[in-house]
Amino acid sequence: MTDPFVVIGGDAAGLSAASKFAREVPSRDVIVFEKGEWVSYAHCGTPYYVKGTVERLTDLLSLSPEEAADRGIDLRRNHEVVGVDTGAETVTVTHDGKTVDQPYGDLLVATGAHATTEPIPGTELDGAFTMHGLDSAAAVRAALSRPDEDAVDKSIEYVDTALVEQYTDWEPPERVAIVGGGYVGVEMAEAFRAHDVETHLFQRSSHLLPPFGKAVGERVADHLREEGVTLHLNTAVDALVGDDGRVASVAHDGSTTDVGLALVGIGIRPNTALITDTPVELGNSGAIAVNEYGATTVDGVYAAGDCAEANHAVTGSPDWVPLGLTANRAGRAIGQTVAGEPSLVGDIAGTAVVKAFDLECGRVGLLDHERASAAGFDPVSKTVTTGSRSGYYPGGDDTDVTLVADRKSGRLLGGAIVGEDRAAIRIDTLATAIEADMTVDELERLDLAYAPPFSPVWDPVLVAAKVLTGQL
Amino acid sequence: MTDPFVVIGGDAAGLSAASKFAREVPSRDVIVFEKGEWVSYAHCGTPYYVKGTVERLTDLLSLSPEEAADRGIDLRRNHEVVGVDTGAETVTVTHDGKTVDQPYGDLLVATGAHATTEPIPGTELDGAFTMHGLDSAAAVRAALSRPDEDAVDKSIEYVDTALVEQYTDWEPPERVAIVGGGYVGVEMAEAFRAHDVETHLFQRSSHLLPPFGKAVGERVADHLREEGVTLHLNTAVDALVGDDGRVASVAHDGSTTDVGLALVGIGIRPNTALITDTPVELGNSGAIAVNEYGATTVDGVYAAGDCAEANHAVTGSPDWVPLGLTANRAGRAIGQTVAGEPSLVGDIAGTAVVKAFDLECGRVGLLDHERASAAGFDPVSKTVTTGSRSGYYPGGDDTDVTLVADRKSGRLLGGAIVGEDRAAIRIDTLATAIEADMTVDELERLDLAYAPPFSPVWDPVLVAAKVLTGQL
Repeated sequence: MTDPFVVIGGDAAGLSAASKFAREVPSRDVIVFEKGEWVSYAHCGTPYYVKGTVERLTDLLSLSPEEAADRGIDLRRNHEVVGVDTGAETVTVTHDGKTVDQPYGDLLVATGAHATTEPIPGTELDGAFTMHGLDSAAAVRAALSRPDEDAVDKSIEYVDTALVEQYTDWEPPERVAIVGGGYVGVEMAEAFRAHDVETHLFQRSSHLLPPFGKAVGERVADHLREEGVTLHLNTAVDALVGDDGRVASVAHDGSTTDVGLALVGIGIRPNTALITDTPVELGNSGAIAVNEYGATTVDGVYAAGDCAEANHAVTGSPDWVPLGLTANRAGRAIGQTVAGEPSLVGDIAGTAVVKAFDLECGRVGLLDHERASAAGFDPVSKTVTTGSRSGYYPGGDDTDVTLVADRKSGRLLGGAIVGEDRAAIRIDTLATAIEADMTVDELERLDLAYAPPFSPVWDPVLVAAKVLTGQL
Repeated sequence: MTDPFVVIGGDAAGLSAASKFAREVPSRDVIVFEKGEWVSYAHCGTPYYVKGTVERLTDLLSLSPEEAADRGIDLRRNHEVVGVDTGAETVTVTHDGKTVDQPYGDLLVATGAHATTEPIPGTELDGAFTMHGLDSAAAVRAALSRPDEDAVDKSIEYVDTALVEQYTDWEPPERVAIVGGGYVGVEMAEAFRAHDVETHLFQRSSHLLPPFGKAVGERVADHLREEGVTLHLNTAVDALVGDDGRVASVAHDGSTTDVGLALVGIGIRPNTALITDTPVELGNSGAIAVNEYGATTVDGVYAAGDCAEANHAVTGSPDWVPLGLTANRAGRAIGQTVAGEPSLVGDIAGTAVVKAFDLECGRVGLLDHERASAAGFDPVSKTVTTGSRSGYYPGGDDTDVTLVADRKSGRLLGGAIVGEDRAAIRIDTLATAIEADMTVDELERLDLAYAPPFSPVWDPVLVAAKVLTGQL
């Protein structure tokens, strides 16, 4: 096989695969087609760039085009793949107005996802943003800064200078709206408040961060209010309303709230348009179906990252949880598999953590009882609040641990943790226990760490396991 | 069975057992004999009391005598058990000069451990201390404080007022010696430096915290030096030398170092003298041998806490790792077993964490190759240093992760972590993986948490697993 390993998409999954492959088989070509300017950047860092914690946009690049070249990767930016022919084993690429067909030996589809704005009209207005991509992050930061501040370095080769310029002259808005109370909404609330902007967050459901469960959502809501965020829970936004092409208010509940900027973070969808006309199949989630090696239903075609499904460790079924580690890990495994050494992409456990101002939140597995029941379990859950350190040692904080178990088998199905002191990282203990198929009874007997500055004798996770075991 | 459940020792294991039992079977008596004044106090907090982080000695009590009474426990302080007759099923108790025999239905030996000072002569001198017990903590704090400071509240009912008075008039020493570089030594170095005392730490072996392995030991040594501690590694102390009954210098290497106070922390030994003349058997470690329910070799006699062995999750063999959670957990399980519901005390994984000034250190399982080989494994290990957060996010720190695996099976045998940012609590991930018998390969594929403020995409634990997997 002399045809190259072709990768569509130069982000986490794509470049992980290409890097691994190039290292293992330096003799064979690997071409990465990236339709944009940016490659391999840290999506998750964008709210912290807007906030100002991260100073330069380029800090968010994990691999520069030069470094990619050094690794032996033929990285072609501004090359958009517009067609895939799995019969002829070619991809059709446009660049600079020209179109060419590129044969492939193996193909990785790593096209990522896009922020959805449906069903909110008005998101095309100036001053309305989604937080998906470095260009929009730069634009939002420019809009939040005074015209004389020069907050965004427009000399960076990759940045969409025209977009940033458009907002450089804006005076900082007095009030902003965030539509959606998921990760993006919560992280951006922190970013906006850091700029001293009046911040209104609209959330359709009754609590924030729905995938983290009620206990986390309620505590985060209280904390956001303490931090000066105005929450509108159970509030569906009907539209962003413009004035002279510029966002001016948010329509909701039959009234409006005037704002100078709106950020819509109501979810993302996998980019799968490219393979619609191929035999590559999608899963029930709408993302690309893959096996344990990241292979799609078509021989020689792989998919990884935010456009692909993965196997869920608890349900044993495919799921779509688009997160950074999953993309990196699957990309790397596929690079190795294509290089000749079949490598498992690994299960996902739905592990996620998020910072909400001073609060650390984590979740893993199945928290929702309906979903757990649908997967064949009889879920029982409990939320327990204990200190994060020995009571006499300063600096601890109440830590709420929610555990979900199957009543019959006692198997740990999911968990969530929230608190200000080392709460998020404790979710890794639960993720490990879940992937090891542990029961809560076994979890309760784990020999976890104890030292007054870091944990009480019984870690909050152990206390929760003890209480839930008592109810099984 | 109408005879009471008798517990020897009113600390973590003893009172956990008594509390659980009293809750489960309120109709049956439970008597706890404690030879001293203090019950159920936090050993691990004493360095922080000396340091001043913890203000009052009473903050270290986790259960007051009054609370014990409220729980239905017949707690008898200043009652020393001087004999056990497992044939007659009685214990002999002295109190206030009187001796009585107390029959028991079930017996728990929870006599703890004592600090050893062998083979160092001179530890009987004034100004020489071990750090085992609240009275000595109070005395050290008194000795470190100016006479007019009144640092120790001598009105507390339980404290050995005479001992504290003895040191109240002492002027703070200019220089102190710590003999031993284990937990106690490292934690006390932090406490002494907080009082601005010149601190010399003598360690017989070549690195600090031997159970944590070389990578942790060396980094802790560097950090202690940065914090102004003078380290004497590979230095055996020959004796504490007195002047007029008061410690005046430390003899080592044929010379002496003048000091005004000496703290000896060179290990503890299980308190087993009480059962020497009974058929209750000791294990190879010298601590009391127990089965998976904490039962000794004599029917109706249990042992838990620092005087007892426990089963090690990696070797599957008995081991002696005297730590707080083990004591609490075993005590509680035995209380439940004696109450009629057989409950496993649980394995130990040798999990331990310690704070060394700003450094957080953790260890678990088998780190020592010799020990791993003796247990039938073919150990291979690797230390990998990576950041604790995304590189662009401030506040992270280099985190050194050491992993040990069995070359043949790939099974994870042990691990150690050191760093300033959330390093210690990450050991729980390894503890969970070890107790679940995971391979490093499985560890590498775990879906662990990622968010820029808390972790890089690949958590330091995953990076280490990836590197070690590559070497198997």
